[in-house]
Amino acid sequence: MIKSFKELEEHAAQGETRRIAVVAAHDKEVLLSLKDAVHNNIVSPVLIGNKKEIESLMKELDIRYEAEIIGTENDQESAEQAVQLVSSGKAHMLMKGLISTPVILKAVLNKEWGLRTGRLLSHIAVFMERAHHKLYILSDAAMNIAPDLDGKKQILENAVEVAHKLKNEKPRVAPICAIETVNTDMQATVDASLLSKMNDRGQIKGCVVDGPLAMDNAVNEEAAKHKGISSPVAGNADVLLVPTIEVGNAIYKTLAFFADVEFAGTIYGAGAPIVLTSRSDSYQTKYNSIVLAAALAM
Amino acid sequence: MIKSFKELEEHAAQGETRRIAVVAAHDKEVLLSLKDAVHNNIVSPVLIGNKKEIESLMKELDIRYEAEIIGTENDQESAEQAVQLVSSGKAHMLMKGLISTPVILKAVLNKEWGLRTGRLLSHIAVFMERAHHKLYILSDAAMNIAPDLDGKKQILENAVEVAHKLKNEKPRVAPICAIETVNTDMQATVDASLLSKMNDRGQIKGCVVDGPLAMDNAVNEEAAKHKGISSPVAGNADVLLVPTIEVGNAIYKTLAFFADVEFAGTIYGAGAPIVLTSRSDSYQTKYNSIVLAAALAM
Repeated sequence: MIKSFKELEEHAAQGETRRIAVVAAHDKEVLLSLKDAVHNNIVSPVLIGNKKEIESLMKELDIRYEAEIIGTENDQESAEQAVQLVSSGKAHMLMKGLISTPVILKAVLNKEWGLRTGRLLSHIAVFMERAHHKLYILSDAAMNIAPDLDGKKQILENAVEVAHKLKNEKPRVAPICAIETVNTDMQATVDASLLSKMNDRGQIKGCVVDGPLAMDNAVNEEAAKHKGISSPVAGNADVLLVPTIEVGNAIYKTLAFFADVEFAGTIYGAGAPIVLTSRSDSYQTKYNSIVLAAALAM
Repeated sequence: MIKSFKELEEHAAQGETRRIAVVAAHDKEVLLSLKDAVHNNIVSPVLIGNKKEIESLMKELDIRYEAEIIGTENDQESAEQAVQLVSSGKAHMLMKGLISTPVILKAVLNKEWGLRTGRLLSHIAVFMERAHHKLYILSDAAMNIAPDLDGKKQILENAVEVAHKLKNEKPRVAPICAIETVNTDMQATVDASLLSKMNDRGQIKGCVVDGPLAMDNAVNEEAAKHKGISSPVAGNADVLLVPTIEVGNAIYKTLAFFADVEFAGTIYGAGAPIVLTSRSDSYQTKYNSIVLAAALAM
């Protein structure tokens, strides 16, 4: 099982170097964020966008990594070219540059040459807690607003697939609620119970699901014991499945600003992982996200 | 402005010692949790419950603090006696012992001799972030499940009253969402906007409300700047108003298990603050909660 971003990096560097199609790459921060990942033989970039600007930025920034550059006229064309590179097998993953997310997603979801799999796209955050020497998966903190039961099932399945690629063969999934008991006034506890039973009956495979759990008894054995919860997941959850985007986002950002935690993030569920960092992410988060996507594209 | 639990303790010790009516006090942990608060002249306990058991526990635990003991036959009688002590002015605050929360709340909400104020009861968590040297107020992480706009307004008003009692005259309130823009697919952002406008128009007083904000741009100035948010609240929120119990609970427990944070909690909105610690709370949290309630009862 991969337990840290250092181990993830070593794992990603072992495989064949993955080609990353960067959409609208004419952006300083994006070009810089690739530097170490290219240097460490984790990715090989195809930079798609305003060719002149990309070249002049690379010169200005003294970027010396090798990169194929594909010139395009506009954002839509950049997105189409990038997605087609991936769907034709010439690249293995996508990265968002200076372009709005909907324009990329529209190309990803194109019915003819897109990367549709019939599955829901979801945001996966991976975070490392140094004290536990462990990678947690948190989903969905950024994309699906208030998924119904089927949406939660698909988000869960995407997260489990990511866990498998991180060499966690049977991840423990905690559907996170405010309490650990069933309360029909709280839909999150109802859906958590249903997902657990679907897992019992083989409708959700490759993992152990047990909820409702609250954050404390999901991640802390003492807290689980205090509540007298007997569960294969409680206290040792690997996947934190949140009921709404507000819950996921609050956990992510509380960790980011109050705890000592490292992150990576990706959009998952299409034919290839998508790196979608934001300007406010630290360099470390951007680097980790590229490494994560490379590992998921192996 | 009170900026730490140390300052809160000093403040609470200054006033007249508050009488705390402890409901179903026949419990080791509850009796122990009062020890330092009594010693520091912050509270003077009235222990209500099984008198024999209280006395034998105090002997067993070698508890030497002075306390009035009122013997009762059962939990309901304990709750009634305690609430009547408060409503008649003979005690200033309530504390939950070995009794279920609904039994206490039923007595609190009694129409004849209860502590009704016509306002919503809400859970208030106060947490201290050492790095910022600041007390944050988080609500509602434990009581109201999915409040509508009016519920959020009342939760907000309770939180603002608590902030005032912590000597923060014009607290900055951030209604927490997953994003900082208006999106009608996300009710939290709609309610956040409405609460802000209600504050602009004087329908909510004594504070500055500005949302929607996400956790990062609520508490971190850099994150707010990154997003180009110009707001009197962004980056410097004192009150984190969450849209659902799941969001509040997740923030609380993420802080508790991944960050270096100290807590206090209370139920607020009745005629007197209610200390409602749980068995899994640390001694520090229990002590802080008693101190907080004493300060709120001043």
